[in-house]
Amino acid sequence: MTASTPVPLIADLRSDTVTTPTPEMREAMAQAQVGDDVYGEDPTVNALQAEVARLTGHEAGLFMPSGSMTNQAAIAVHTRRGEEVICAEGSHIYEWELGMMAAFSGVVPRFVPAPLGVPAPEDVRRAVLRSPHQSPSGMISLENTHNKAGGTVIPLDVLAAIRAVADAEGLPLHLDGARVFNAATALNVPLHDITRHFGTVSVCLSKGLGAPVGSVLVGSRAHMKEAHRYRKMLGGGMRQAGILAAAALVALRDVPARLREDHRRTRQLAEALVNAGFDVDLAAVQTNIIYAALPDAQARVDAWAARGVRASALGHDRVRFVLHHQVSDEALEGAIAVLTA
Amino acid sequence: MTASTPVPLIADLRSDTVTTPTPEMREAMAQAQVGDDVYGEDPTVNALQAEVARLTGHEAGLFMPSGSMTNQAAIAVHTRRGEEVICAEGSHIYEWELGMMAAFSGVVPRFVPAPLGVPAPEDVRRAVLRSPHQSPSGMISLENTHNKAGGTVIPLDVLAAIRAVADAEGLPLHLDGARVFNAATALNVPLHDITRHFGTVSVCLSKGLGAPVGSVLVGSRAHMKEAHRYRKMLGGGMRQAGILAAAALVALRDVPARLREDHRRTRQLAEALVNAGFDVDLAAVQTNIIYAALPDAQARVDAWAARGVRASALGHDRVRFVLHHQVSDEALEGAIAVLTA
Amino acid sequence: MTASTPVPLIADLRSDTVTTPTPEMREAMAQAQVGDDVYGEDPTVNALQAEVARLTGHEAGLFMPSGSMTNQAAIAVHTRRGEEVICAEGSHIYEWELGMMAAFSGVVPRFVPAPLGVPAPEDVRRAVLRSPHQSPSGMISLENTHNKAGGTVIPLDVLAAIRAVADAEGLPLHLDGARVFNAATALNVPLHDITRHFGTVSVCLSKGLGAPVGSVLVGSRAHMKEAHRYRKMLGGGMRQAGILAAAALVALRDVPARLREDHRRTRQLAEALVNAGFDVDLAAVQTNIIYAALPDAQARVDAWAARGVRASALGHDRVRFVLHHQVSDEALEGAIAVLTA
Amino acid sequence: MTASTPVPLIADLRSDTVTTPTPEMREAMAQAQVGDDVYGEDPTVNALQAEVARLTGHEAGLFMPSGSMTNQAAIAVHTRRGEEVICAEGSHIYEWELGMMAAFSGVVPRFVPAPLGVPAPEDVRRAVLRSPHQSPSGMISLENTHNKAGGTVIPLDVLAAIRAVADAEGLPLHLDGARVFNAATALNVPLHDITRHFGTVSVCLSKGLGAPVGSVLVGSRAHMKEAHRYRKMLGGGMRQAGILAAAALVALRDVPARLREDHRRTRQLAEALVNAGFDVDLAAVQTNIIYAALPDAQARVDAWAARGVRASALGHDRVRFVLHHQVSDEALEGAIAVLTA
Repeated sequence: MTASTPVPLIADLRSDTVTTPTPEMREAMAQAQVGDDVYGEDPTVNALQAEVARLTGHEAGLFMPSGSMTNQAAIAVHTRRGEEVICAEGSHIYEWELGMMAAFSGVVPRFVPAPLGVPAPEDVRRAVLRSPHQSPSGMISLENTHNKAGGTVIPLDVLAAIRAVADAEGLPLHLDGARVFNAATALNVPLHDITRHFGTVSVCLSKGLGAPVGSVLVGSRAHMKEAHRYRKMLGGGMRQAGILAAAALVALRDVPARLREDHRRTRQLAEALVNAGFDVDLAAVQTNIIYAALPDAQARVDAWAARGVRASALGHDRVRFVLHHQVSDEALEGAIAVLTA
Repeated sequence: MTASTPVPLIADLRSDTVTTPTPEMREAMAQAQVGDDVYGEDPTVNALQAEVARLTGHEAGLFMPSGSMTNQAAIAVHTRRGEEVICAEGSHIYEWELGMMAAFSGVVPRFVPAPLGVPAPEDVRRAVLRSPHQSPSGMISLENTHNKAGGTVIPLDVLAAIRAVADAEGLPLHLDGARVFNAATALNVPLHDITRHFGTVSVCLSKGLGAPVGSVLVGSRAHMKEAHRYRKMLGGGMRQAGILAAAALVALRDVPARLREDHRRTRQLAEALVNAGFDVDLAAVQTNIIYAALPDAQARVDAWAARGVRASALGHDRVRFVLHHQVSDEALEGAIAVLTA
Repeated sequence: MTASTPVPLIADLRSDTVTTPTPEMREAMAQAQVGDDVYGEDPTVNALQAEVARLTGHEAGLFMPSGSMTNQAAIAVHTRRGEEVICAEGSHIYEWELGMMAAFSGVVPRFVPAPLGVPAPEDVRRAVLRSPHQSPSGMISLENTHNKAGGTVIPLDVLAAIRAVADAEGLPLHLDGARVFNAATALNVPLHDITRHFGTVSVCLSKGLGAPVGSVLVGSRAHMKEAHRYRKMLGGGMRQAGILAAAALVALRDVPARLREDHRRTRQLAEALVNAGFDVDLAAVQTNIIYAALPDAQARVDAWAARGVRASALGHDRVRFVLHHQVSDEALEGAIAVLTA
Repeated sequence: MTASTPVPLIADLRSDTVTTPTPEMREAMAQAQVGDDVYGEDPTVNALQAEVARLTGHEAGLFMPSGSMTNQAAIAVHTRRGEEVICAEGSHIYEWELGMMAAFSGVVPRFVPAPLGVPAPEDVRRAVLRSPHQSPSGMISLENTHNKAGGTVIPLDVLAAIRAVADAEGLPLHLDGARVFNAATALNVPLHDITRHFGTVSVCLSKGLGAPVGSVLVGSRAHMKEAHRYRKMLGGGMRQAGILAAAALVALRDVPARLREDHRRTRQLAEALVNAGFDVDLAAVQTNIIYAALPDAQARVDAWAARGVRASALGHDRVRFVLHHQVSDEALEGAIAVLTA
């Protein structure tokens, strides 16, 4: 799975998941007070859960090893077997979570068109099914920012309108907030202005925030109690997980303020690529992700890697670049030189 | 669920599932030799299974109470949990089988665009996934005729090309043949010219063929053995099912030749509707189904029912008419008079 | 699966599922008024559902093709994924329904010891789990009569006590009533004296009652509405199912009164077997089933079949005999002669 | 979930999962080289996987956040929906993994009696089902040491005999090796003398070994490839998991040699308890676990906790004590004083 890089690495732009722990995170891990979290006794895990709940304006939080797990636990909490999950086309819960909504919760997706990752509230409403001859709608799930659409942001008024649809239809509303800090940064609002619209939110700590491992699911205490059962079923009950939580607390403290810089650099790279003739939709470049249409994507990616710049090929004709706090201005300059050579 | 009809029924055009058994079918049921089919001892069921296998050119057949069950058993046979079922958008296995592919087999759909119900072979190929980061493709499923697209027919060369994709990718190919007799009639070919391309085929006996209950799944003996286990799991093991099989054998003998008449009448109704100003895509009217776009669909349908003609409202703005062997030329005239009044 | 019988059949004692429709049932099927039951429009199905609901004292009924399906739909109605179904050891829902509680509902069994098929209420209570480290109890399911224990009957006071446990624990209580008419006959009480204790009851029509196909699930209207969705998912939505319902209505009218005779003949056979040296627990012979421990069971069963008497071998060292309304006194005498020769 | 301890903690004997990282582990975590393990690029995770594979004599290993996840991934690898998992009564995969074998893999358990945690090979063979009327056997799973039976050890000749049954029946054999290091210590053999009998083995690092988080599944490369897909589905794909792997590598190096001391102290405590009148089956005290039958278990446990000794109440009338490397001889003396006071 790993491409070898015969020259020194200039920048790893494959994903914001590739960051390594900062010295502050390592120090925090070395000093962390821990306990057995399966018994609920790890003080650092408890502190992390409380902190994410506070930031998002929810009652309680639950730490899990990945954003896939927090998303899938939320789907299990909100649905019964045979129901539908209304979601934007290209949603991570469908595209990159390997059919788990079916295998674990027994539910299928119902897609809503989402130009630039933003579903129209009226389309969401139209996707709600009530006929006894069809699978009933079980929940609505949004993704903000929307990865596959380009790290795009859902405007606050659209969020409010979709929340109104969910309320009118009596459907729970979940947010895959893998990059919700990027969304808040782009919108220039506090996190809870976004997260307050949702019954549950999955907040990832190992993407833009740079923590080594983990996501937190937030919601009501009752939902978290049920999510706790599903976490155990999924094998996400970890023991002295405070080690990981300690790094995540540092990430929460230090990194969000730096996301604005990531976005600025992303814009800079996108414009450089367009100037060099790349096919990039600048309207979709809103946070820290860039997609470019490119024939022979894998061959191009391999050639860049051989020169120290790593990107992701998606399918045959698309590449992805993702900025994060471990790409400096200097590294970016180097990467641009390679990519536009 | 049932709309009352205060006047004598002129024609029930809601579906071809509404036919009632003919006198010949009733006589066959009354005389049928039966046994306990859970032990494989019902001679009439065995005869039906053999006959459908012969007609479709497959090794063996298995009788089940519905086409949903034959489809879902086939999906279980061909997939492992977490895989994807590549299928045309609007497929019955997704739209009208209530999420069962997820709840029972743990698999999700991967949709391919299908104008007039016909997926492009190249799009099918493109839908095949191999990345370790995504759900692997488990099977390809087609529907011919395609109900939601309007009872449309997949041309034989497209079938052959999709079969070639399936072979090249090593993927099993299933046919939802709920109305495969209509497809063969429209293409003017023997049934097996269509069915030979598939690893398994679900053949429905209670739609256009008019038998009271049942579908037969055909395929290899090994696949049918596995399907037998899934049939039992699904609760489809019936005892003296020869009662139902007897009627189905009559349907197989008597009804296929009449489908051409159904199609002729369908065309006649479609043209009458267009002449009366209905929004019908005549290119999609290829067999025994007509869709018309119509505001206030339910109100219109209720009004027609009050005058003796029944149709189906689908959503807010679409109606469906389906012809079958129990709508005579005379009844059709009467129905046209009501619908175009 | 079928053993050939080179001589005329004296008696088929393999199961009470092997009966063939009576002339009255065939006549009823030939005359049945039918409609499309997927639309809820089959008047004979509706009449059957109402009749079974009336007999059992429940609000509503739902017809399905098998008792496995009614049981599994009930389990789906009462549970959420990951819960436990508390049931007597040897229950049909586990032993003979092929893991469907897991595959469809995602639940596991929790067994309670059941000497002679009767679980102790205190053991049921002890099986209820509440720890966050264990799978929570989702429902309690009983089987009356209990097939694997020998067609044994649960006394009314035990039923009442287990119902009290269910109420105290807030757990739904389901009855697999595949042979509940046999239980009522043995207890000499009306059916509803048994069935009133349960939230849902599966009543089989194709075992002792002799109808060709089908079972009815009864319960509250709300539960039946949900069961309707699960029936469709399972592929149990049949079209002109009134054909089958017509025979079942005849069975309900004619056969229950004859069960007493089946039980008398069963006792007669059991005593004859004991006198001939068979290892039969007479305390377990309470209705229409006899188990005998017997080495080389399959060889013995084959030898009897060659002389016109069919029985079931279960595993290596057990045989089962089941009486039903198509075994006359004369046939029984003939069977006893063969079995004790 | 946590009982407060008003006095200084003397010993936490609730489980061997409660250990906290040693200074060496913390140092290793602070220094660990890490990468994105979802891309397979974390060198420390790779080293850990290779080391466990080497120790167990298997081709490859896969790191996951818990033993529940490694067990459930193995079950998914070995089974198809609707099959049975043959296992000893009281197995962790059933008792403490919250119905996940059903919810995820769609399979049910088939229990074999296991006095002192050891199933008889002949009983395992008898549990294999082949009838088309029953759920087919999909795999055999053993647990060594067997937690619920008291940390008991399966003798090597029994392992070999059960392996022979598995081979003869063509069934895969999995080991829940949550405490397989304790078993090897008790048997005084290298780990691979036990693990070589199995197709897959789950090795836990956070129980007796004292690592903060994680288990490794080992088996063939082909099985690990499939397990990798299931790990991702379960949400067990972690990013810079080398942090955790670094501690686990220290645990593997330092702790196994100390297990003999844990076992000695366990014996010492068990004998002290018996001498004080506790109802302990000394025959079951073979490694680091002691169960005692005790009325009012929770009250007793609470009273001990108030005096600085923590134990687990299981149900109403059983307590469990577990020794581990962070209970010194001195602490044990203190604990015995409290428990036998």
